Amino acid sequence: MLGGLLIAFSAFMLVPLLVAPSPFHQPGGAFVLGALASAFAGLALIALSPASGAFEMTRRQGFLVTALAWTILPAFGALPLLGVELSAADAYFEAVSAMTTTGSTVMTGLDFAPPSILLWRSLMQAIGGVGVIVLGIIMMPFLRVGGMQLFHTESSDTSEKIVAKAFDLAAWIFGLFVLLTLACAGAYHVFGMHWFDAVNHALTTVSTGGFSTHDSSFGYFEDARLTWVATVFMLAGALPFVAYIRLARGRTFEFVGDIQMRALLIFLVAISLLVTVTRVIRSDTPVFEALTTSAFHIVSVVTTTGYASEDYQLWGPFAVGLFFILTFVGGCSGSTAGGVKIYRFQILGRLAAAHLTRIVSPSRIHPVLYHERKVEDNVAYSILSFLVALLISLLASTFLLAWLGVDLITALTATSTALANVGPGLGATVGPVGNFASLPDAAKWILSFMMILGRLEFFTILVLLTPAFWRA
Amino acid sequence: MLGGLLIAFSAFMLVPLLVAPSPFHQPGGAFVLGALASAFAGLALIALSPASGAFEMTRRQGFLVTALAWTILPAFGALPLLGVELSAADAYFEAVSAMTTTGSTVMTGLDFAPPSILLWRSLMQAIGGVGVIVLGIIMMPFLRVGGMQLFHTESSDTSEKIVAKAFDLAAWIFGLFVLLTLACAGAYHVFGMHWFDAVNHALTTVSTGGFSTHDSSFGYFEDARLTWVATVFMLAGALPFVAYIRLARGRTFEFVGDIQMRALLIFLVAISLLVTVTRVIRSDTPVFEALTTSAFHIVSVVTTTGYASEDYQLWGPFAVGLFFILTFVGGCSGSTAGGVKIYRFQILGRLAAAHLTRIVSPSRIHPVLYHERKVEDNVAYSILSFLVALLISLLASTFLLAWLGVDLITALTATSTALANVGPGLGATVGPVGNFASLPDAAKWILSFMMILGRLEFFTILVLLTPAFWRA
Repeated sequence: MLGGLLIAFSAFMLVPLLVAPSPFHQPGGAFVLGALASAFAGLALIALSPASGAFEMTRRQGFLVTALAWTILPAFGALPLLGVELSAADAYFEAVSAMTTTGSTVMTGLDFAPPSILLWRSLMQAIGGVGVIVLGIIMMPFLRVGGMQLFHTESSDTSEKIVAKAFDLAAWIFGLFVLLTLACAGAYHVFGMHWFDAVNHALTTVSTGGFSTHDSSFGYFEDARLTWVATVFMLAGALPFVAYIRLARGRTFEFVGDIQMRALLIFLVAISLLVTVTRVIRSDTPVFEALTTSAFHIVSVVTTTGYASEDYQLWGPFAVGLFFILTFVGGCSGSTAGGVKIYRFQILGRLAAAHLTRIVSPSRIHPVLYHERKVEDNVAYSILSFLVALLISLLASTFLLAWLGVDLITALTATSTALANVGPGLGATVGPVGNFASLPDAAKWILSFMMILGRLEFFTILVLLTPAFWRA
Repeated sequence: MLGGLLIAFSAFMLVPLLVAPSPFHQPGGAFVLGALASAFAGLALIALSPASGAFEMTRRQGFLVTALAWTILPAFGALPLLGVELSAADAYFEAVSAMTTTGSTVMTGLDFAPPSILLWRSLMQAIGGVGVIVLGIIMMPFLRVGGMQLFHTESSDTSEKIVAKAFDLAAWIFGLFVLLTLACAGAYHVFGMHWFDAVNHALTTVSTGGFSTHDSSFGYFEDARLTWVATVFMLAGALPFVAYIRLARGRTFEFVGDIQMRALLIFLVAISLLVTVTRVIRSDTPVFEALTTSAFHIVSVVTTTGYASEDYQLWGPFAVGLFFILTFVGGCSGSTAGGVKIYRFQILGRLAAAHLTRIVSPSRIHPVLYHERKVEDNVAYSILSFLVALLISLLASTFLLAWLGVDLITALTATSTALANVGPGLGATVGPVGNFASLPDAAKWILSFMMILGRLEFFTILVLLTPAFWRA
């Protein structure tokens, strides 16, 4: 399976050649070599695997494939980047940042970078975006990680029916993703981007990745219409794709009634209005401009995209505090967004409220419901464990980065942004107008690992570290 | 009951008169007035209460008494501080900081402050210290808050036997606290403090409060022996008092085998050595000095005391990151320490590990044990809810403070230090050599509330906000 992924990946690696001047010179050559290496490794893996008739997968294989996909594919994806003289740490960081749709970058001079490299970064984000939706909708419930089993509809494992259903779902997801990306690219082009920028930004908007083809990110365009297009499509990428599938199948009522989506929208509108009003009152920003940039940056961070058109740290200390908090929020389950995600907050809130009621009247029974389904203990424990793993990773990585000489705000917010797959942190170094390039190499490896940990919701990686996993 | 507390409190308020020049002039007069007000309010409350024969308490009354004790006593405790021309916000903040054994201060010029005021601050911390041990050992398990029910031995409520046992326990706690304080004061005096300083610091050491009689806190003394005395007695205040009672009753084996205590000690030794080695390698600090000050400050923050003898932020970025993390650790259950507390980390770790095992082999049953007792679902949910409440409070207060114009590091670490009842935050304003005085008044009210929330483990306050509590 991993072999298949690698071969498909190598095919994608040839796409940027379309915009490279020549496959025989740099950076085109690096793509050819990268594609060859990736295809060769894929073929070797397939050749070495024992032949099996029906396509089946145990949960253990599921964990292994998922973890390896997000660690090894970026290693191959980094190969072309070595062609523009990035160090190994930088290239892997950039590729992981792409495949996890984080969007933190160590590259500068993007405006003058080879188009093939820019397209490859955007493509990797789109591949990572589709990958993570498949992960969220199909793999996570199957692996029972992070409370996603709440969205699991079947209870039997490894049946042929589920595999068929999974392929069907994956096809839907891919189709929808392509459709959204095309719509987004079209809208960008209509409002003034030339096609190359439009396609690149569409790929990184719908995947809530956030890579740009310009050092100043969306600040390059200075067009309110483009900003709103981005806002709408970032949001589209952070909504549950299952809801789109329901909508496409004509179940409009269920689409509109999705409580996760509603909560996200209400939250975004409320926070955007709050920030807009504050900015209008405290500075002389015109109302429409304040609304446009507030909504854009808030949606950008909450959907874990990470585009920036200006330094929101200059809006005042309240904005700095707010954006730090927003980093953790995240989008909906089964979308391209990272972070803690709305449904976890909803369930945590319900559990805490139920606890409160139980303290007041201990004798009554208080079942916790979500989407009219009872939240089972194992879901609650999954979410609790997710939270514990997030906090431990946050503290450990912050400490390690501080140990390496990074200041606290940079260490804390670079870790947060990596774990939540957002992109920019806070402060001068890793902030919205900063760049991760100046961090020590060791910090880049740590942050790469944190991006993968966060993207795979911790336990997909952590199970591989238990002896029981390898013994069983 | 609250009336009784107020009258006892008013009696304590007369103690500082012993060191005041005259009860008829300031600040002595403020104590007399404060004591009178407190005694009058107490008597009024008792007179207004319906007479009841046996002393019984329902859980609802338990919540109410606890919450009111930590909000109203500081209001009366603040009265004498008004005598030294503190504003209402400052005086209440200082009194809450004392009664919650936090130790953040808004007062400067302590070296020249009236002795009566200094003694009153220290006394309030000791009263708060004894109060919180009683709270942790007797009330919390009874109220089933924060997972403390794990340490609950009886299951029936409001029986006479439990009340008798509670009074017996409270007497033990008070006796042990006085004994430890006397030992600490004696040790301080032997190693060079004059009696007034020794008594004041003993009161704030054993209560892990951290108020000092000098602006430069422990930096005033510059004596390694005093530093080590403080380190030992801060630690003594953060160990479970139940374990002391067992020890006093001759159950040495259970004392030594207490896994919570062991984990805390191992953690402190490991971190202290790590920091010592780092400082010795990275700077030219002599080994013994590095060990003394590292152990002192680490124990000070982890036990949530908050003494400082120098600015540990100057040890390097790693120290800043570390002390931010250490703020949340806290001591043991049923001690004077705040924070998340060791047993919660132990249980959270066990729950997450059990989750990991369950992911790998879902069919087997994995009971989670703590101290050879099964961790019931309601304990797990209590701790989960504690964590959720902590995070929500942390984010909300950080955001509100940032909104008021406070910079992120100050807002974040002032909130953390308030919620964990530690004392100093990070940065120039609220750091170990800073002072909370310059914060806006609104921020002081918010932080006062956070100190109370953290001290009462959130849910004792939060239940009062539910309609069901008042309806039942």
